[in-house]
Amino acid sequence: MNQPVTPSFGERARRALDAYGPLCVGIDPHAALLTSWNLPDSAAGAREFGLRAVDAAAGRVGLIKPQVSFFERFGSAGFTALEDVLARARQTELLVIADAKRGDIGTTMDAYAAAWLTPDSPLEADALTVNPFLGVGALDSTFALAQLGGKGVFVLAATSNPEAALVQRSRSAMGESVSSTIIAEVSGHNARVTEAGKWGSVGFVIGATVDWGEAALIAVDPPAAILAPGFGAQGATPADLHERFGSHTPMVIAAESRSILSAGPDALTATIEARVRQYQEVSHV
Amino acid sequence: MNQPVTPSFGERARRALDAYGPLCVGIDPHAALLTSWNLPDSAAGAREFGLRAVDAAAGRVGLIKPQVSFFERFGSAGFTALEDVLARARQTELLVIADAKRGDIGTTMDAYAAAWLTPDSPLEADALTVNPFLGVGALDSTFALAQLGGKGVFVLAATSNPEAALVQRSRSAMGESVSSTIIAEVSGHNARVTEAGKWGSVGFVIGATVDWGEAALIAVDPPAAILAPGFGAQGATPADLHERFGSHTPMVIAAESRSILSAGPDALTATIEARVRQYQEVSHV
Repeated sequence: MNQPVTPSFGERARRALDAYGPLCVGIDPHAALLTSWNLPDSAAGAREFGLRAVDAAAGRVGLIKPQVSFFERFGSAGFTALEDVLARARQTELLVIADAKRGDIGTTMDAYAAAWLTPDSPLEADALTVNPFLGVGALDSTFALAQLGGKGVFVLAATSNPEAALVQRSRSAMGESVSSTIIAEVSGHNARVTEAGKWGSVGFVIGATVDWGEAALIAVDPPAAILAPGFGAQGATPADLHERFGSHTPMVIAAESRSILSAGPDALTATIEARVRQYQEVSHV
Repeated sequence: MNQPVTPSFGERARRALDAYGPLCVGIDPHAALLTSWNLPDSAAGAREFGLRAVDAAAGRVGLIKPQVSFFERFGSAGFTALEDVLARARQTELLVIADAKRGDIGTTMDAYAAAWLTPDSPLEADALTVNPFLGVGALDSTFALAQLGGKGVFVLAATSNPEAALVQRSRSAMGESVSSTIIAEVSGHNARVTEAGKWGSVGFVIGATVDWGEAALIAVDPPAAILAPGFGAQGATPADLHERFGSHTPMVIAAESRSILSAGPDALTATIEARVRQYQEVSHV
């Protein structure tokens, strides 16, 4: 039997948050941002944008989150650009969450997991966001593949966009919300495969502005990283962190994209440093 | 205002089904199939596999469905291979459904739609499968972009894998199953934008072996194409078509992959022709 690579992703995420605080820099080369950076709206522009963002993030934050769709829109050339960005990130200590929200079943899902979570694959990242519409159980072999390579997975659990309610706030025959069921099933997996006292390697995507009461969310236990988009331009501030996440606060990865990237390439490092300080101040309250 | 391209995808899908019957050839270059075809398990192997499948399908069936994950596992090289396969298919009358199951919100989702549904983009297909976990409403601008280019979308509605039940069979506050809510919302969209008597351009993915009663599915109205994986190796036979889909039968796209592709490259055209005849026989019952 192959032994899983150590430290696990869960423990690597915990160390990154301990060392740098919660800020995760999103890398979203959409057309408007490329234009404001004076870069062409092309794969070459997305590559340059991504490389500069990696250089600015390295040593200042623990995690980055490239948004795959903004590379995919350029087809294979976009993926070549993304591979260059991922390769640059691998030369640093940054943990890379590939935000691709893949979701399927069987060998099809396994192929997505192989694409993003296999050591030495061209699109190798440290973790992948996935979509549980086909069931958390359909992701079991993805979890297993991730574990073997010391990789992580973030399962979409609760998002703050109002249209999501009809699916995510629906109730199972047991009366639990879909979001809670997902947290329960993933936590069960983490409990089975994680040493006591360590973080699980399968985390969650939970929007920063989700109302935990209204969404009827259960607690994340054992602990695992919570990727929280919605900080910055989408409305949540560093000062909101405790209020929104309560006892979960130490597990939160606060993803910000536009609020940081719109500073432009020249002000990027200063913007990241200032934002990291803001998070550090509130985390010492 | 730009006028949508005509004929719409809904009408093109109807004509393809009328002309060739329901069979849709899946293009799934996974490792085991490449080996059995004596092709390398590489992007070059996937390219060759895909090109041969397109050539065998053209003029014999109306639709093909490349499974994106089996190209994505090779990174950018895999997408280059897929672009070659898609380009070959565009030289034929085949309708191409890119089975990528993408799902996100806002500009991120728009970027996925742009990648696959923009005329002249490198990954241009005729239709894209999408995931509604973030809400059908989050897909509105994808539907609009598709409509404008005469493209189609297939929304995951009900799958037959047992793990999916916890999400898809959950109930909204109104008591409807998630799957039914998705059908209702998409049908509402189709009704708003489709001329009377024509097919909607946003279809559904509904597994061939889904029990419509148990899944509490409502009827698809106005009509729209139903992409039904699960024929062939996964258990449903051409003779099952009427029994499983009842009055929906004329809308069904019966996707088969392994059952056809495992015949190997030399027997491929004969296998496709035989299978097309089987579907034609049952559709004349």
